[in-house]
Amino acid sequence: MSGDDCLFCRIARGELPAHRVHEDDHILAFLDLHPIRPGHCLIIPKQHHPWFEDLPEDLANRITSCAQRLSRHMKALYGVERVALFYTGIHVAHAHAHVVPMHHVHDVSSQAYLKDGVLDFTQPPQLPAEHGARIAGDLAAAFPA
Amino acid sequence: MSGDDCLFCRIARGELPAHRVHEDDHILAFLDLHPIRPGHCLIIPKQHHPWFEDLPEDLANRITSCAQRLSRHMKALYGVERVALFYTGIHVAHAHAHVVPMHHVHDVSSQAYLKDGVLDFTQPPQLPAEHGARIAGDLAAAFPA
Repeated sequence: MSGDDCLFCRIARGELPAHRVHEDDHILAFLDLHPIRPGHCLIIPKQHHPWFEDLPEDLANRITSCAQRLSRHMKALYGVERVALFYTGIHVAHAHAHVVPMHHVHDVSSQAYLKDGVLDFTQPPQLPAEHGARIAGDLAAAFPA
Repeated sequence: MSGDDCLFCRIARGELPAHRVHEDDHILAFLDLHPIRPGHCLIIPKQHHPWFEDLPEDLANRITSCAQRLSRHMKALYGVERVALFYTGIHVAHAHAHVVPMHHVHDVSSQAYLKDGVLDFTQPPQLPAEHGARIAGDLAAAFPA
């Protein structure tokens, strides 16, 4: 899905309403309609790219820079110690960065960290050393010399 | 906490062991010792910066670019549709990006999305339009004309 049918392409083109926070010719920041916390924003490229790793360098950097500026502002506005930035690609396959003021450590978290409920912070089992060496080797192949 | 005492500064300097995946003069990618999923990596700047919004542009961009490359590689290696990138600042106040292959929609999630358990995906309540306009206005002040 892209272009005509993509929800975020339609928002970027102004065909669907959104609470727009900031935009330039290349990116748009707007409020998530189902916020984890008040102020939860999405930042998207106006052009359609399905996943964050597809983003051309310039677009990825514009999004990061916008998220940094929002984050500094949210800390002042909401009095939080942390602001999260995350890409997961859930729901809409048009790359989108979430920016969320963290009022609780599990506002952005994992089912693995929540195994013992929201009052705890579960540490998943420690990586066995021998698996670590193999996995690190497998991943290092992403960076050919 | 920074420099001598910071866990990630010590890993960057090689004073503490880690399963190193990739590094250059400025950043280091290594395996999270308590992985959400096998392959879960952290990418840090070698220099101490507490939060992601503190990262100088060049460092932030190097981390994003490294995460993109890891993400493409993880998709091939682990056969997953999505790879998450997230900064939350939990545990160690030295900016670190998590890169996690998503085998489940709640591998990187929120307590708000998990209210009905891991078999569901809870949508938090919709933002009332009048609140949206105010919140968007508050956040837009992060971008003075």
